Amino acid sequence: MIEMNATKLSVRVVVVAIVLFGAICHARAADDPLPSWNDPASKKAIVAFVEKVTKAGSPDFVRPEERIATFDNDGTLWAEQPIYTQVTFAIDEVIATAPQHPEWRETEPFKSILSHDREAMMRFTIQDFEKVVAVTHSGMTVQQFQEIVKKWLAKAKHPRFKRPYTECVYQPMIELMQYLRANGFKTYIVTGGGQELVRAFAGQTYGVPPEQVVGSMSKVKYEYDKEGRPELIKLPEVLLIDDKTGKPEGINMVIGRRPQGALGNSTGDQQMLEYTGAGDGARLMMLVHHDDAKREYAYGAESKIGTFSDALMAEAKKKGWVVISMKDDWATIFPPAK
Amino acid sequence: MIEMNATKLSVRVVVVAIVLFGAICHARAADDPLPSWNDPASKKAIVAFVEKVTKAGSPDFVRPEERIATFDNDGTLWAEQPIYTQVTFAIDEVIATAPQHPEWRETEPFKSILSHDREAMMRFTIQDFEKVVAVTHSGMTVQQFQEIVKKWLAKAKHPRFKRPYTECVYQPMIELMQYLRANGFKTYIVTGGGQELVRAFAGQTYGVPPEQVVGSMSKVKYEYDKEGRPELIKLPEVLLIDDKTGKPEGINMVIGRRPQGALGNSTGDQQMLEYTGAGDGARLMMLVHHDDAKREYAYGAESKIGTFSDALMAEAKKKGWVVISMKDDWATIFPPAK
Repeated sequence: MIEMNATKLSVRVVVVAIVLFGAICHARAADDPLPSWNDPASKKAIVAFVEKVTKAGSPDFVRPEERIATFDNDGTLWAEQPIYTQVTFAIDEVIATAPQHPEWRETEPFKSILSHDREAMMRFTIQDFEKVVAVTHSGMTVQQFQEIVKKWLAKAKHPRFKRPYTECVYQPMIELMQYLRANGFKTYIVTGGGQELVRAFAGQTYGVPPEQVVGSMSKVKYEYDKEGRPELIKLPEVLLIDDKTGKPEGINMVIGRRPQGALGNSTGDQQMLEYTGAGDGARLMMLVHHDDAKREYAYGAESKIGTFSDALMAEAKKKGWVVISMKDDWATIFPPAK
Repeated sequence: MIEMNATKLSVRVVVVAIVLFGAICHARAADDPLPSWNDPASKKAIVAFVEKVTKAGSPDFVRPEERIATFDNDGTLWAEQPIYTQVTFAIDEVIATAPQHPEWRETEPFKSILSHDREAMMRFTIQDFEKVVAVTHSGMTVQQFQEIVKKWLAKAKHPRFKRPYTECVYQPMIELMQYLRANGFKTYIVTGGGQELVRAFAGQTYGVPPEQVVGSMSKVKYEYDKEGRPELIKLPEVLLIDDKTGKPEGINMVIGRRPQGALGNSTGDQQMLEYTGAGDGARLMMLVHHDDAKREYAYGAESKIGTFSDALMAEAKKKGWVVISMKDDWATIFPPAK
């Protein structure tokens, strides 16, 4: 190239410059990073936040390696109604492994599950759930558990939407995660659900690696198998319930610094948003309000799960948290079927 | 630029090309990423490992986002003799805060510390240390604790080397961390020391951000201060002792996947190296052997801390772990004084 005729070269330079300039203009016009977001207000809040923290010299500038946004999972990234996916998983696992546990037919809470007694299940106490979680979430290696979860997710379907749970994710949130990552953010999931369970699908579903999943944790035990190979066995002992005050506590354990952005949908996320908002500089706190019975669900303080209380709405207003109306703000709810 | 005279432009292109080519050649020749490593064997093992996992198409290839290496801290990244730095910190803190605790003058283990009774301190039990850790490592916010640590580190000096503890770090290990990061690895610290303490200096000292520090963890509690601002208070309750079997357990909690590389120096790191080595593909397991009494320390099975037992050496040989002789393999121990 360096021996090329100088006139030819200058022509090429002009052509390349024109092509590049055109491509940039085209990209700017067509490349809306948040096409599934309708509402000017919540979308504008997101874009304004990102511009503030990424603009060098801005008083709100955050160095790329310090940019962190945390997302709740149930009800924020995927549907949590009519029942938490993890509970459905645990019930299905009890049914699937019942043949190896004949004693369950006469022992509660397993008896109610095996006889499909929905009314009895609705009355389950925390202790009942703990028994169910203990037998379905421990006694195997971390790797084995994640294989079980993956197999279940590959065949289970949401009762209403008739598609895999991993396709009952919110397209606008997927876009928001991608947009934040494109702007240097590390996107974390901070979930009340089991850390190992969410890690089993977060990579493929959300593009979030295992080290960026903070969840409720149980103890694991380092042991050797029969061949002397080390393995990590899941124990039925809780280390952290990553919900409410447990969310900032879990963020401290795994991340060790305050996020600039936090997204949730319920009273379980309240403290995470408070903690995020208490930092200096620009912050983005958003709550998904499930007000779309037609396309998804509408539920609030009266719901047993994913509670969006009046007090939470009042705090959101007072502190300037952005409340996302699913009905109005989201052009699309779920991604196209695969 | 595109209106520039074409001949001038072509001259510029030639000049730029020559300069760039020269710079690349110079960089290739001079750019040894591990200049403080002497030994062809351990250095070759590092370079061979990195080439295997980074070469696209190689059976050992690991995608950049999955590349993880874990480093122990005490005795692997910085000096741990004559006494763990964290213990010195705790003792200094007891002395510094004693005026607010007149009762300590008559209560063990504080009485021995305040009367500088070294013999009594040598006989301290685990329970004694727990009492010292409780008063020096809890009862304040995480942020306050880290400020205390930073202030202490800024003035404390190593008793033998007469330089700050953060300068008693091993230059060859700093280079190794940089080399791994330049090849796409995330470098984690996995320390038996306190997670919050190590996070207070790991960024500046090692270039390791807080989310890549796994350590012994105590509980934190989410609370509001008098102005209603949320804060995280350190409690005197242990969540994880990140040592021995606790290391792979801590790795699972925070990272959630098996590292490809693990570096340690003692029986406290044995399980981390076993767990790392039990994965498929190329793995790098290395142990620092402190055999350099002249420039640092020489200690083995007889040492109370940083134990390098005969059994550990035997396991290293059997499993092909690289044992680094500090005396022979490291051209430099510490970085130049600042």
